[in-house]
Amino acid sequence: MSVTAVPGFDAAGVACGIKASGAPDLALVASADRQPVDALAVFTTNKATAAPVQVSRAHLASTGGRAVAVVLNSGNANAATGAPGRGDAERMCALVAGELGCRPEEVLVCSTGLIGIPLPMAPIESGVAPLVAALAADGGQSAATAIMTTDTRRKEVVVRGAGFTVGGMAKGAAMLAPNMATMLAVLTTDAVVHPDDLRLAVEGSFHRLTVDGCTSTNDTVIVLSTGMVAAAGIDVALAQACRELAEAMAEDAEGATKVVTVTVTGAASDGEAAIAARKIAESELCKCSWYGQDPYWGRVVSELGSAGVAFDADTVSVTYGTITVARDGVACDHDAAALKDVMAARRLHLTADLGIGDGHGLVITNDLTHAYIDENMGTS
Amino acid sequence: MSVTAVPGFDAAGVACGIKASGAPDLALVASADRQPVDALAVFTTNKATAAPVQVSRAHLASTGGRAVAVVLNSGNANAATGAPGRGDAERMCALVAGELGCRPEEVLVCSTGLIGIPLPMAPIESGVAPLVAALAADGGQSAATAIMTTDTRRKEVVVRGAGFTVGGMAKGAAMLAPNMATMLAVLTTDAVVHPDDLRLAVEGSFHRLTVDGCTSTNDTVIVLSTGMVAAAGIDVALAQACRELAEAMAEDAEGATKVVTVTVTGAASDGEAAIAARKIAESELCKCSWYGQDPYWGRVVSELGSAGVAFDADTVSVTYGTITVARDGVACDHDAAALKDVMAARRLHLTADLGIGDGHGLVITNDLTHAYIDENMGTS
Repeated sequence: MSVTAVPGFDAAGVACGIKASGAPDLALVASADRQPVDALAVFTTNKATAAPVQVSRAHLASTGGRAVAVVLNSGNANAATGAPGRGDAERMCALVAGELGCRPEEVLVCSTGLIGIPLPMAPIESGVAPLVAALAADGGQSAATAIMTTDTRRKEVVVRGAGFTVGGMAKGAAMLAPNMATMLAVLTTDAVVHPDDLRLAVEGSFHRLTVDGCTSTNDTVIVLSTGMVAAAGIDVALAQACRELAEAMAEDAEGATKVVTVTVTGAASDGEAAIAARKIAESELCKCSWYGQDPYWGRVVSELGSAGVAFDADTVSVTYGTITVARDGVACDHDAAALKDVMAARRLHLTADLGIGDGHGLVITNDLTHAYIDENMGTS
Repeated sequence: MSVTAVPGFDAAGVACGIKASGAPDLALVASADRQPVDALAVFTTNKATAAPVQVSRAHLASTGGRAVAVVLNSGNANAATGAPGRGDAERMCALVAGELGCRPEEVLVCSTGLIGIPLPMAPIESGVAPLVAALAADGGQSAATAIMTTDTRRKEVVVRGAGFTVGGMAKGAAMLAPNMATMLAVLTTDAVVHPDDLRLAVEGSFHRLTVDGCTSTNDTVIVLSTGMVAAAGIDVALAQACRELAEAMAEDAEGATKVVTVTVTGAASDGEAAIAARKIAESELCKCSWYGQDPYWGRVVSELGSAGVAFDADTVSVTYGTITVARDGVACDHDAAALKDVMAARRLHLTADLGIGDGHGLVITNDLTHAYIDENMGTS
């Protein structure tokens, strides 16, 4: 159901021919009455901003945050494509607007796939009419399928609140990092959403996720809201929806054999805890250890010592699950058999306590595996 | 020859039993007359400083930069070992001093290996006497062998200047990163060395090397100088020696199939160029591409855009070897057959021009391979 779980939205996904494989590659989410609804978005911080990000940002500025539809393609990122790329992104919006009977500025656009290759427009020129024709009140699943790249499964969410619903779909399987990722997410709701609700929801979900430390050129989270319900609790529901989508991404990260939650406590501040957690989460050596189910905590301490945060080698402790393996900076006795089970599980919780202050922070990541390399050593 | 290529220095390496494999694991470099010589050192910036780093730093402070010998062990880092670890490092110095007839403060100590495991002192207690007995004017090769960990070959250098010599040995195969690495280097010379000579030599060599972005707890570069010659050109010779040792490390990095030199030009400043070059060099996605010989420059641009430096998507260019694949931010025509050869070579030179200013910087790194993961997924 995803985005069409919410009354007032239609969606569709088709294969238009961008992907050589013939898999679905063009998706649309639109208001059911083709009238503008409230639209909020958070975009990548990467300065090499993809054309669709530039165009969507301009459209939102132009309409004051209103949109009729979001069109998304997979198979090509339309990034590092210069002025022609911006023209192509605008053309995508114009094509959709023409079919829907709205203004081009009322259409937002997202792309995901390889960078630096001109977007093939012929399949899009011919694909938009069938896409719009396919719009349906139960089209959420088709749309969620059409935005997948190396994702192995759809990422959908529905959260029901008191009198309102939040639906969402997302894609993302690598290049997930601080400030989002090669990730796209479109959420719909019938509740009134404030910008702070979205900002906090993203902060507590996608921004806590790092697979490989790479921040993509295309990251976009969009919320469309009919605003039919002025509901208390939309902040919580939106946060939950974003968290579920982020966790689905972590579960499906390229080549990963496990999801690792890194929590840092006892830091000088929450900010420093987050920096330290991210340093561990992005350490190639730590990630290899987790893949090997090796509880080698020396690498964790070494990363903490070089994270650029307040650190005292004599007060640090490291815990896997509930089993503390190092206390006050040195190895401590522990149940080795139980630890073996903890390291072997599909979900690993690592906690590092710096023993300095009250700051705490959390980052979700994965292990680094042979399959990740297989996935990323070639693009052709 | 390495450290013993310089008149006035003896060296030795033995197997004392720290390594279960029985491979050499204890090394010593000493002045030939067992009298103090000038000693300079640069240590890791990791705050989880290993015990031998703490002890060597204190000894240099105590003697005002004089030393008779450097003792080094492989097979155990004596890091995250608390006060007992510091006691063990002091004991290593005292044992050597007892045999050499000097003060313990006149001995420096280095360790490399796993973190968090108490240093086994029994083999060292019994190993120091044979080690000192083995000191010889041609012992450089034995010493260079005894400091190897996952290194597949010795790293030695001799640079001859006008009337003086610089000799050196090093180890380092992973965890090589900004501000050195799990790397140890001991250099000897008969020329007078100023602290700035060492600082600049390290800046231009070990600090430009990054394998996996991990900064070790034990990194140490020590220069011992008899000071017999007040030679012009020691700065150049020392820089060359450090650069050759750093390149030998890059050549022998864990699992690497190629050495990649990343140069960033046209940055707003040299500092920003260095930051940008390091961002590319430490990108898991870029490193996987190089392993796969894939000239996918989109990842390079994406890293530049998220490096936190001044960036303009419309002025960036990317060049492999001499073949430019992207100009003004978009793909450009190039000789694909020639590019294939460039990507397949053992040495890859990548240049990214930001087209903004005059800043330039260079970082040396490797590709990310299945073998790196094999090497690091387990420690036992």
